[in-house]
Amino acid sequence: MRLEIRVCPPYPVWIEAGALERLSAIIDEAEVALISDSGVAPHHLQPVRRIIEQAGKRIATYTVEAGEESKSLATFTKLHRSLVRDGFDRRSAILALGGGIVSDLAGFVASSFMRGVPLYLAPTTLLAMVDASIGGKTAVNLPEGKNLVGAFWQPKGVVMDVQTLATLPIPLFRDGAVELFKHGLLADPSLCRAVLSGALNDLADETRLVELIGASVKVKAEVVAEDVHEASRRAFLNLGHTLGHAIEAASNHSLRHGEAVTYGLLFAGLLGRNRGWYDPTADLLKLCEWLSPRPLPHNDFAELLPYIDRDKKRVGSERRFVLLKREAEPMIARDVDEAELRQAWKDLLEVLS
Amino acid sequence: MRLEIRVCPPYPVWIEAGALERLSAIIDEAEVALISDSGVAPHHLQPVRRIIEQAGKRIATYTVEAGEESKSLATFTKLHRSLVRDGFDRRSAILALGGGIVSDLAGFVASSFMRGVPLYLAPTTLLAMVDASIGGKTAVNLPEGKNLVGAFWQPKGVVMDVQTLATLPIPLFRDGAVELFKHGLLADPSLCRAVLSGALNDLADETRLVELIGASVKVKAEVVAEDVHEASRRAFLNLGHTLGHAIEAASNHSLRHGEAVTYGLLFAGLLGRNRGWYDPTADLLKLCEWLSPRPLPHNDFAELLPYIDRDKKRVGSERRFVLLKREAEPMIARDVDEAELRQAWKDLLEVLS
Repeated sequence: MRLEIRVCPPYPVWIEAGALERLSAIIDEAEVALISDSGVAPHHLQPVRRIIEQAGKRIATYTVEAGEESKSLATFTKLHRSLVRDGFDRRSAILALGGGIVSDLAGFVASSFMRGVPLYLAPTTLLAMVDASIGGKTAVNLPEGKNLVGAFWQPKGVVMDVQTLATLPIPLFRDGAVELFKHGLLADPSLCRAVLSGALNDLADETRLVELIGASVKVKAEVVAEDVHEASRRAFLNLGHTLGHAIEAASNHSLRHGEAVTYGLLFAGLLGRNRGWYDPTADLLKLCEWLSPRPLPHNDFAELLPYIDRDKKRVGSERRFVLLKREAEPMIARDVDEAELRQAWKDLLEVLS
Repeated sequence: MRLEIRVCPPYPVWIEAGALERLSAIIDEAEVALISDSGVAPHHLQPVRRIIEQAGKRIATYTVEAGEESKSLATFTKLHRSLVRDGFDRRSAILALGGGIVSDLAGFVASSFMRGVPLYLAPTTLLAMVDASIGGKTAVNLPEGKNLVGAFWQPKGVVMDVQTLATLPIPLFRDGAVELFKHGLLADPSLCRAVLSGALNDLADETRLVELIGASVKVKAEVVAEDVHEASRRAFLNLGHTLGHAIEAASNHSLRHGEAVTYGLLFAGLLGRNRGWYDPTADLLKLCEWLSPRPLPHNDFAELLPYIDRDKKRVGSERRFVLLKREAEPMIARDVDEAELRQAWKDLLEVLS
């Protein structure tokens, strides 16, 4: 499946079994710096190296430690220095092979190496395919917080090889499915129905995987194309993330992203339901059962509120939540008060019990 | 004088005596992080702080050490961490007050802080006014070389207060005039004639300064607007810089930029003259006399050639020089051979002797 992401300039996304083979054709540059991590490299680095070399290109590979710690300005600095010493220049390309941490890091390096070089993405996790690979956001963390330093830098091409998902542990795969489900809630109810009917249970069914990932990418790509720099509509993608981020931060990231967002989606659903709007609670409880997330850390809501309000501070003075007014009809509520939040939290604990 | 730089979106450049006062009106954001250096801050930081505060905005100031060492990823990292800790966010603005080192550094911070915040420039050196402030190039250095990590990031507004030039030592002021002269060679012969007739000798003649700086900014702005990402015409701005950069690198930056570029302009002029093209040698020797640069370091041409070719490597396999075919008619020569270079070098030593 080939999708066109309509940013400027537009770029192709290939979604298929064996998509990594496409790299030989879609990379225009003669020199390629491949950035990967220690979790992904043992599985996929050699085949990708061979594909690039067989296309007659020079390739050098850089493997960072797997894990969030590598998304740092220290790793960023090391990569830049290595690229210069290895003779890469403005006409070289950077290829990110791995999950969202690798593409965030390698993308920011690409955006800034000699003021910007072409970037290609080969995501190997479901989360990276449906989320980090689309939209051009790159970043590294500071000790003060996540994703605080970065750039918007669109790739020149993306290859999503669903065969790489076979090497992903099931809990990680399902964690990524939460963002796919979120895209379904925002704009494509059939995607939610497919997940709940078990469409993602058979990783060997590559045709089905391509179809669902493609549908999810389409939702995100359409939102992003309309609002590249996150001024308005792109904020819809934060559905479930206001509470999700607060849970992650308050629990010191002891939950995976998808787990925290699942609770966040339920919370946003309940906020909407309590206003008499669309009620996705039953579907979300089914998603929850399928994901079987680690339990909600025993946080008092009073502990979470400061984290929600820190999120708020980032975008000014309002406490904004994305809610579903009707099925697949998100809106941004700017008037959510504390009583509403406390009620939804009480309801969340109840539906989970 | 108000110029409009026609990048997308366009932004205003104010050139006048007292232009710093404009900052209160042109900065839209409520929170301002001012970045300056230890050379400039004692002269201009307090007045600027007062102007911003009187406009009812919050301002915090960050003063880095004056000098090229501050254009590093270490300083970049420190500034980012300070901005977060001091509560700045996506809706804040960054204001660079100082020369090209400050605007390159602060500009790169602005391009990447929370993936990009508005940037305003208040250049206080002639070089920064006619060169670094226009065109959106930002960067820091690596131990491996200069300007290797950065971004294209256009400011939202620029104020060039010619009164700040009064605090600049004369040799530094004249060094900046070399880039202004270069703009004259490229597109505005009256600018060259004005410099050679002493128009920049009286720093108290603010009207004349505004006029000449404005004319120089116009030349660069027109080239940049046509070629924001330096794909083609923008390369004209490298007139004199191929040899200039080689001299700087080979002499370990013992010459100032303008000094090295003056020799580079003479060299490019001689290359063209030897082809029977436009001959600016007489004017450039007059410029040289006015500038009285430190002598050309006693480099054998064999020592310089590798540096010229390293510059070449950056843009592929050709050895490219910007030459003047006719007066104010630059072109890019891609076929300059070593014999031509050696002849021009011999001629350069001769005209300087």
